[in-house]
Amino acid sequence: MSTHYNFSGGPGALAPSVLTQASQAILALPETGVSILGMSHRSDWFRGVLDEAEANIKALLHIPDGYHVLFLQGGSSLQFSMIPMNFLRGKSHGAGYLNTGYWSAKAPPEARLEGQVDLLWDGTAQGYRELPAMRDLRLSPNSAYLHYVSNETVEGLEFSYIPETGHVPLICDMSSNLLSQPLDVGKFDFIYAHAQKNLGPAGVTLVIVKDELAQSAPALLPTLLDYRTHIKAKSIYNTPPVFSIYTLMLVTRWLLHDVGGLDNMRDINRRKAQKLYAVLDKHSDVYQTHAAPQFRSTMNCAFRLKDDTRTAQLLSEASGHNIIGLEGHRSIGGLRASLYNAVTENDVDSLTYFLNHFAEAARP
Amino acid sequence: MSTHYNFSGGPGALAPSVLTQASQAILALPETGVSILGMSHRSDWFRGVLDEAEANIKALLHIPDGYHVLFLQGGSSLQFSMIPMNFLRGKSHGAGYLNTGYWSAKAPPEARLEGQVDLLWDGTAQGYRELPAMRDLRLSPNSAYLHYVSNETVEGLEFSYIPETGHVPLICDMSSNLLSQPLDVGKFDFIYAHAQKNLGPAGVTLVIVKDELAQSAPALLPTLLDYRTHIKAKSIYNTPPVFSIYTLMLVTRWLLHDVGGLDNMRDINRRKAQKLYAVLDKHSDVYQTHAAPQFRSTMNCAFRLKDDTRTAQLLSEASGHNIIGLEGHRSIGGLRASLYNAVTENDVDSLTYFLNHFAEAARP
Repeated sequence: MSTHYNFSGGPGALAPSVLTQASQAILALPETGVSILGMSHRSDWFRGVLDEAEANIKALLHIPDGYHVLFLQGGSSLQFSMIPMNFLRGKSHGAGYLNTGYWSAKAPPEARLEGQVDLLWDGTAQGYRELPAMRDLRLSPNSAYLHYVSNETVEGLEFSYIPETGHVPLICDMSSNLLSQPLDVGKFDFIYAHAQKNLGPAGVTLVIVKDELAQSAPALLPTLLDYRTHIKAKSIYNTPPVFSIYTLMLVTRWLLHDVGGLDNMRDINRRKAQKLYAVLDKHSDVYQTHAAPQFRSTMNCAFRLKDDTRTAQLLSEASGHNIIGLEGHRSIGGLRASLYNAVTENDVDSLTYFLNHFAEAARP
Repeated sequence: MSTHYNFSGGPGALAPSVLTQASQAILALPETGVSILGMSHRSDWFRGVLDEAEANIKALLHIPDGYHVLFLQGGSSLQFSMIPMNFLRGKSHGAGYLNTGYWSAKAPPEARLEGQVDLLWDGTAQGYRELPAMRDLRLSPNSAYLHYVSNETVEGLEFSYIPETGHVPLICDMSSNLLSQPLDVGKFDFIYAHAQKNLGPAGVTLVIVKDELAQSAPALLPTLLDYRTHIKAKSIYNTPPVFSIYTLMLVTRWLLHDVGGLDNMRDINRRKAQKLYAVLDKHSDVYQTHAAPQFRSTMNCAFRLKDDTRTAQLLSEASGHNIIGLEGHRSIGGLRASLYNAVTENDVDSLTYFLNHFAEAARP
């Protein structure tokens, strides 16, 4: 088993007990004696995996009736296109979009291929250091939907509230914070998240969609890009990423039974983030966080050395202590520590211990 | 390790040495000490995996210059839509399609959303037991492209020739026989195959596309559905299915170094198919193959008991001998034995031994 402390922005670390079971499943599943890589996706065994994954997610998030839980492919990037194809195409009004960081900025260009985009907030000018307040958002009551990203993985900004949209469908990319804390799913019409942060390995994308919204899509969409296809086929219209979904199911089982649910997970995640930000704030002459303090993410802490010339040295020394994945995203450089669910408090203690020492040694 | 003989139509069996390495990689990669599920797709290590997979595929298939090798998501079903979006949209002429079985029948409806489909052959009436001869295909020289499926997984039909299309781009779904035998890639403009037959685990789709064709696509396609996106980004525009691609790379390494290339693989596959068809033909009073003899696939043998009422008994007895995956596809019922690359001659010997005994016991 890996002995590294992995703070990668994604694909993120997974819990050791999940890795052990996933590794074993490659050789032979305990239930079937067959490698998971050779199991039919139409077997009773895999139907059980899909059903348990769905049930666990519904239990963790207390999802009300009327929602479908789907396991798709293509990541958030494909959702950026599928959402407007299904819910903006042919509409006489536009859809509201918030541009709050690197990821959310990628959604509006895809939506413009299908209809009008109303950009209700653009954080580009401030370098994505702040998020809008609810009162900043002038959403038309006729909008096709409002789309936003709840946690900006690159810049480390996280929404602390859910926008109120009245009758306008609310759509959210939660790729980097879904299942990190409790959530009032009933306020959303569509939630999506690729797996490779908190949910499992790369290769599967989770969609939680209200039936009413899914059924409102126009006719004659490409079959695989129509959510109704996957609802009807219960996520096996075509061969799904069997291994990724199995591992995601193991992660939900771990969250439910080992962690004890999302209230506990939120408490752990908050403590982790508090510890990290505390050491960065303590050494504010050495470190600087990217996000303004009130918008700081519990999942991704983007920061930099005030003396940027020493970044490579920090990464190298961290690596010497088996602390990896601290490189900032290529779009903004600097440093980033991602504190996804499977990053333990002990991992964070190792990181803060290191950052503390580095800062003290850095001082002239 | 599994002790079953797995003749599943897909996801198919993989070689034990591949499974061992993939299983180990989940715990910790030998090269990095980190679980593959937590490795960044932008790491040097993963770039090396992509590069080796591409190089191995180019070496195995002797791919000429001017082609790109891409690793995508969504399976063949998404290709059914992406191909006409990229190569039929806005064209004044239609695209030729061959309907030769369950899978190829799924492609034309997606193409019709983008332009005109010229159905050059329709095997529905004969129940998909035969394939067209080259002289049957009246392809317009102005066609946008010709699309066909080289091996029908469900019905067990395989093309023994490559259609001559002159200047018309030739596009082929080789999901169930790519890398099972040598191939003259230079005759094609676009080849695709989902991985879960001969290439690796479900979750990744291989595309081999001629640059000239890829660059001919119209502007303003959804970013993720435009092949140029993936060419430019060298298959990491967004997070790819890291584990599936790694395992695919291991499979190509196995084919190249353990099997010794595709000439050897073809010889092995031919022997396997000959053995199986021989026992079915020997007991032609008990068994009946779906495909007319000259169109029989080396990869998928669809057959049935003349006395259909004993199918469940055959499956049950096979299972008692650890022979699994023999159920026919739900669309045609009966039986099917898939002889993908990782199915060994020894596996086939076990199957033919069983089928021989079953036939003899079945006789009054």
